[in-house]
Amino acid sequence: MSEINVGIIGFGTVGAGAYEVLCANREIIASRVGAEVVVKRIADLDITTDRGISFQPDRSLFTRDAMDVVRDPKIDIVVELMGGLETAKTVILEAMKNGKDVVTANKALLAECGPEIYRAAEEYGVGLRFEASVAGGIPVIGALKNGLSANRIQTCIGILNGTSNYILTKMTQEGLPFDKAVEEAVRLGFAEDPPTLDVGGADAAHKLAIIISLAFGAPVLFKDIYREGIVEVTPDDIRFADEFGYRIKLLAIAKDLGDTIEARVHAAMIPKDHILANVSDAFNAIYLEGDFVGPNLYYGLGAGRRPTGSAVVSDIIGLARDIRCGNRVRMPPLAHVQAPVRQIVIKPIEALVTPYYFRVTALDRPGVLSRIAGILSDHQISISSVIQKGRGRKGPVQIVMLTHEARESDAQKAISRIDDLDVVAEKTMVIRVEGDQP
Amino acid sequence: MSEINVGIIGFGTVGAGAYEVLCANREIIASRVGAEVVVKRIADLDITTDRGISFQPDRSLFTRDAMDVVRDPKIDIVVELMGGLETAKTVILEAMKNGKDVVTANKALLAECGPEIYRAAEEYGVGLRFEASVAGGIPVIGALKNGLSANRIQTCIGILNGTSNYILTKMTQEGLPFDKAVEEAVRLGFAEDPPTLDVGGADAAHKLAIIISLAFGAPVLFKDIYREGIVEVTPDDIRFADEFGYRIKLLAIAKDLGDTIEARVHAAMIPKDHILANVSDAFNAIYLEGDFVGPNLYYGLGAGRRPTGSAVVSDIIGLARDIRCGNRVRMPPLAHVQAPVRQIVIKPIEALVTPYYFRVTALDRPGVLSRIAGILSDHQISISSVIQKGRGRKGPVQIVMLTHEARESDAQKAISRIDDLDVVAEKTMVIRVEGDQP
Repeated sequence: MSEINVGIIGFGTVGAGAYEVLCANREIIASRVGAEVVVKRIADLDITTDRGISFQPDRSLFTRDAMDVVRDPKIDIVVELMGGLETAKTVILEAMKNGKDVVTANKALLAECGPEIYRAAEEYGVGLRFEASVAGGIPVIGALKNGLSANRIQTCIGILNGTSNYILTKMTQEGLPFDKAVEEAVRLGFAEDPPTLDVGGADAAHKLAIIISLAFGAPVLFKDIYREGIVEVTPDDIRFADEFGYRIKLLAIAKDLGDTIEARVHAAMIPKDHILANVSDAFNAIYLEGDFVGPNLYYGLGAGRRPTGSAVVSDIIGLARDIRCGNRVRMPPLAHVQAPVRQIVIKPIEALVTPYYFRVTALDRPGVLSRIAGILSDHQISISSVIQKGRGRKGPVQIVMLTHEARESDAQKAISRIDDLDVVAEKTMVIRVEGDQP
Repeated sequence: MSEINVGIIGFGTVGAGAYEVLCANREIIASRVGAEVVVKRIADLDITTDRGISFQPDRSLFTRDAMDVVRDPKIDIVVELMGGLETAKTVILEAMKNGKDVVTANKALLAECGPEIYRAAEEYGVGLRFEASVAGGIPVIGALKNGLSANRIQTCIGILNGTSNYILTKMTQEGLPFDKAVEEAVRLGFAEDPPTLDVGGADAAHKLAIIISLAFGAPVLFKDIYREGIVEVTPDDIRFADEFGYRIKLLAIAKDLGDTIEARVHAAMIPKDHILANVSDAFNAIYLEGDFVGPNLYYGLGAGRRPTGSAVVSDIIGLARDIRCGNRVRMPPLAHVQAPVRQIVIKPIEALVTPYYFRVTALDRPGVLSRIAGILSDHQISISSVIQKGRGRKGPVQIVMLTHEARESDAQKAISRIDDLDVVAEKTMVIRVEGDQP
């Protein structure tokens, strides 16, 4: 049987996971590819620490110099799992220049420098795959490239950050405040310390940029995606959401509006009976709607050595199948052979129209609700439900409102005026509402 | 731009749906393929009835003779959507013999004659795809071929028959008896009249045969899959299941036990907090576990013109990409280039070990429960929970039990002895339990 040779650059969690999959399922993979897939070289700055996997690479495979891998004439597929931006980009471009196909899990790199990398793959005539860059083990990139390829993708709503979802799940199930939930997530290994990229929405926005690029066949950049995190969500918000029939999730949302595209990441309320509301703990899920397929959901583990290793190796298998058939570039990186039919124009967040949740903390004085309602009305915002609850005997009260659909710019102006009222004691919490109202 | 020519055989619901997708999303598809995909010929016995789609094929495309399509030298891809076994098989084999790639949605044909068709595709060197044959618009076949290809698939639990799921949902939500729920499903177009293949489990078993064949890379036949339907499930069973913390679903289950494979379709109780328990109405879902990816779920619409049309056209796009690259057989039908490493041996149902639900209808006499419990104990079946409820003042009582894991052959023997007791008034209902006990 012929051999297809792989070089791995970056032997951390994901690199070791990919190596473990290739060893553990060597026979299955050979049967599916029709060739042996063999790891020929592994580059990492640390070539001595035990990675705790059940297969130990021979010491002779290791090098500290990534260029030893990308320039090795025996290697067919270079797997970039080092992370980071500049060095990773240099490694990938050099690998492509040397005629290697490339697999990467580097969501930040693709979301920030995608156009340059996609162009290089096409220019050098090599394959580029990145299933592991979005939602770990869930093959949603494959679904967008293949199974849903007959559709115009209309909606994507993703729970793409497992750390944030774990934290929100703990806050919901155990009533923990954000800081305590973060502590527990860090302690159990579900979060880095501090988990800034996760809870701030950047990680989910990286992944959303990649999903949109695939859905529309043209690169979208991280910087163009509006993002907020979950840092300000309180147990009160979660309880009020529950009373209104919603759960709070960090959602990555993209919608095709015809002339423009919505692309945003923020905490959002979603009806409890929506299938995404029941995605708990560190699980990820992506809800997609296509014009013909209707609603689709993909669910699984979005991180971790084994699921991410599974995704990386599925990409290696795909490229190895292409190589075995003598056809290295069956599909361009974004699975569109021709430029897409239309330009992607991302709608500014100010133009968003959606229902809102406002939690106003105000002194318990006569006329407060009427002043707040008056301001909302001035800005064409109409209220659909209100809950008012005292905090303690003399403290401020919480006035919580759900609105009908309103324009973001109006909501921002109204809340700014409300927060200027002398009776308002704290900054008002604003959470956008997704999905039909229950 | 070059053209890839398609012939459609069978212009019913799915055929018309596929045609509609190809017309409505012509530009997107061309951009994704890099060639125009053009329908050149449509064969159907009925070439006059309006199909109610928004694009009308030119009359000149139609023929009543399928052979006009499979022998047309201009046609690259033949799409078999006529259904049935013998004629469909003849059409597919003749198309392959004429060098055409083939797309089919014909689950019964693949589950009953798969080996002959897969062999012919390899022999004639043509592509064969069948995404629409399982779970309509959900690209689970693509996931098994590609995104999960690095894994040994360990577990598949599918809700694969939308009609049965709709009926069970109505029974659960509205307390309807089976017959009334069927009537409503027929009235609303969710079921054929009578829905024998659906509610008897045959349709789900066809699909499970295809999933297992892909997961293991060797054809499994419909006849080897144990199946029961949902006809005997009563509103009482659904209520008792609810009390125990379960929902009742028609599940298609496959498990890799190492030496053998479990493959069975039957009504089953699944914990309410399992993600499959919340798949309602006519939706389908497939829960898969791979040794590295862990749990994965795929969810969407399993039937209907538009979702199934989406799946058929995704297959056309995949084959068109292969044709455009000059590589017609990138992947064999079951996505394994070499014979699988091991033989598939299906475990006989008698050897199944699982927890059970028994609903015994007995006369309300002293000692009944002890006689029943004694028989179960004789057969090494231990009870984990019991509910006993009277039916009316003088009627029989229902004794409902959940057991710990027991062997199917023991369960059958015990129930046969129980049903022979003079105090037992009706045949005992047996439902297998899936998933960890809540």
